[in-house]
Amino acid sequence: MTQSVQNALPGLSRVGVLGGGQLGRMMAIAGIPLGLKFIFLDPSAEACAGSLGQLLQAEFSDVDAARRLAAMVDVATFDFENVPQETAQALAQIKPLYPPSKALGSCQDRVVEKEILTGLGIRVTPYHTVSSRTDLLDGLDKLGYPAVLKTRRLGYDGKGQAVIRDQEDLERAWQQLGDQELILEAFVKFDAECSLIAVRGTGGETRYWPLTRNVHSEGILALSLAGDFDQALQSQAEGIILRLLDHFDYTGVLTLEFFVLDDELLVNEIAPRVHNSGHWTIDGAQISQFENHMRAITGMPLGGTAANCEALMFNWIGHLPARAQILSIPGVHWHDYGKAARPGRKIGHATLTAESRQELAVNARRLAAAAGGMFPCLLNTIPGMNA
Amino acid sequence: MTQSVQNALPGLSRVGVLGGGQLGRMMAIAGIPLGLKFIFLDPSAEACAGSLGQLLQAEFSDVDAARRLAAMVDVATFDFENVPQETAQALAQIKPLYPPSKALGSCQDRVVEKEILTGLGIRVTPYHTVSSRTDLLDGLDKLGYPAVLKTRRLGYDGKGQAVIRDQEDLERAWQQLGDQELILEAFVKFDAECSLIAVRGTGGETRYWPLTRNVHSEGILALSLAGDFDQALQSQAEGIILRLLDHFDYTGVLTLEFFVLDDELLVNEIAPRVHNSGHWTIDGAQISQFENHMRAITGMPLGGTAANCEALMFNWIGHLPARAQILSIPGVHWHDYGKAARPGRKIGHATLTAESRQELAVNARRLAAAAGGMFPCLLNTIPGMNA
Repeated sequence: MTQSVQNALPGLSRVGVLGGGQLGRMMAIAGIPLGLKFIFLDPSAEACAGSLGQLLQAEFSDVDAARRLAAMVDVATFDFENVPQETAQALAQIKPLYPPSKALGSCQDRVVEKEILTGLGIRVTPYHTVSSRTDLLDGLDKLGYPAVLKTRRLGYDGKGQAVIRDQEDLERAWQQLGDQELILEAFVKFDAECSLIAVRGTGGETRYWPLTRNVHSEGILALSLAGDFDQALQSQAEGIILRLLDHFDYTGVLTLEFFVLDDELLVNEIAPRVHNSGHWTIDGAQISQFENHMRAITGMPLGGTAANCEALMFNWIGHLPARAQILSIPGVHWHDYGKAARPGRKIGHATLTAESRQELAVNARRLAAAAGGMFPCLLNTIPGMNA
Repeated sequence: MTQSVQNALPGLSRVGVLGGGQLGRMMAIAGIPLGLKFIFLDPSAEACAGSLGQLLQAEFSDVDAARRLAAMVDVATFDFENVPQETAQALAQIKPLYPPSKALGSCQDRVVEKEILTGLGIRVTPYHTVSSRTDLLDGLDKLGYPAVLKTRRLGYDGKGQAVIRDQEDLERAWQQLGDQELILEAFVKFDAECSLIAVRGTGGETRYWPLTRNVHSEGILALSLAGDFDQALQSQAEGIILRLLDHFDYTGVLTLEFFVLDDELLVNEIAPRVHNSGHWTIDGAQISQFENHMRAITGMPLGGTAANCEALMFNWIGHLPARAQILSIPGVHWHDYGKAARPGRKIGHATLTAESRQELAVNARRLAAAAGGMFPCLLNTIPGMNA
């Protein structure tokens, strides 16, 4: 079989991905059956997506490598939101890059992100920009205690942030983070945390998965429960994300993380990519966030985003629980990212599916008990999931 | 990251697969999230599973290559049922091979297969063993016209067989096939064709997917409709396959193809592997045949085999229809095997899912019309699917 014949097949578009982590890996698992082939750019030779395609080992700051990647593919995307703007723009000058580098860049700075949101009339957590110790004191005067001090750039999974409850915290936080550009955010005593994931195709077709309830532990997502909110909140969330899709002239999957406060949504964060809180869509929705992201960026028609069943995702952080024990619980779908275990590292997840919320709750308690650690306690914080 | 740390993870078992076609490819897509890694042995450098693991390029008759494969993996299976017995046995002497080579060997000879079935009291198509022209004439006397002359070995997808309706067909069939060991089978005027897929774990745990209605075109499977038969027929089929699972001391996925005749099942063929008629389970069942095969052979607990929804599979033979047009129909899941197009070759499939049989029928007619060729006509042969 000659290479030219292979290339003549309609299904063999090559997708370049900046980043080769678990998000890229799950993009490939979803995209390969669509006829796509993958090339990942990642600084690590161990990048876990690498075994599902070709791996171009290079730093994200290596603009030449990004140009080489562009030459090898038909379209590009990213699985890592801290790709430098110069790298993304260099690639985008050669091949289409979705989501657009404008969205990528805007979400890399928490202050710029909040300015865009407020400019669009979207409610955000009250905040204050901090470039000096004086700014920080002014901010605390304005927002009050407690508040959260965060780096404007490069924070994720609770890294680069500190809660300030008193004067002592203030000094510690300033010592820890004071050499960077910062943002001080009010500490929101939310009723719940949730996220909305949307996808838009190159032709403008837009779809939304159901709002997902999220539970964090030490700043890292631990549990996501699909479809746990009413239609009013769903509509509110869709109205908000629609403004952002339009603003960014967006293609691909976009995620918004919200705080729910008295039936109102405050945007906590924008993620211009597939998101950990959407992993349940692989096993619980008609078409997953990964497959629809691939369909969107390659110009294919989008698939349905409705939930097929009840679904609850457990994140495996730092280590994998005993696989055989977890898989003996009915309705468990196992996802091992093929990454080495390391404290605080996301190395896999499991999605529990069930026909009814009651069946879900029963098996969720078994799963939480088998997984151990914080899970039984965290599960109890979700209404209807406690014993 | 050191290799030893990687190997210490519980999820990194290595699976060897004799054959690297679409079945191996779909095993890998299902097995990779379970934490498995794959090595395929295949004579072709273009084997379409190769991009999802390591490819050991060797002939299936190369016993040394099979031994090398065995040394590289923890457990082995096959995606191709014509692997020579010597190869399978050589591998099985070094590492566990599932399904057992005994089952593999028995299913490679249509006469041996039928002798095992009748020995277990299972109804089969009436047949006559043919080693000479005299045998053929005796067989036609016994079974009458029409009858089907088949090679005992190496036939698949309608290859190596000829229908004999009259004296003229007889001469043509003998000229075409007479230099091989043959079997003459009565031509069964069945009411329907269906298949049952079962899976058994190393500990004996056994599960069954719902009976699937199959429609063939020119000897090749064209359509599979999930769960299209009543509980009585399902129980009858499960009783039959259970005798075979026990007989072979089976581990893994086993498929039986049946003719339905006056509410009775006749076994047409045994396939000791995942099967084309079970591809709908990827998108329509709780756990797919591919994932449960992987769970079974690696000793993991099995997952649920119930259908989540209505599901109908369309096989893409020889060429892929226009992907964008097909994907614009609601509920379509696309599976491109990454193989070069060639007449008569299975190069992909699509599974249509729906909430109700009525919705399925409506979208199935759209899909059949978009796919063209024989599909509209074949779809019309399924009760409830015609316009």
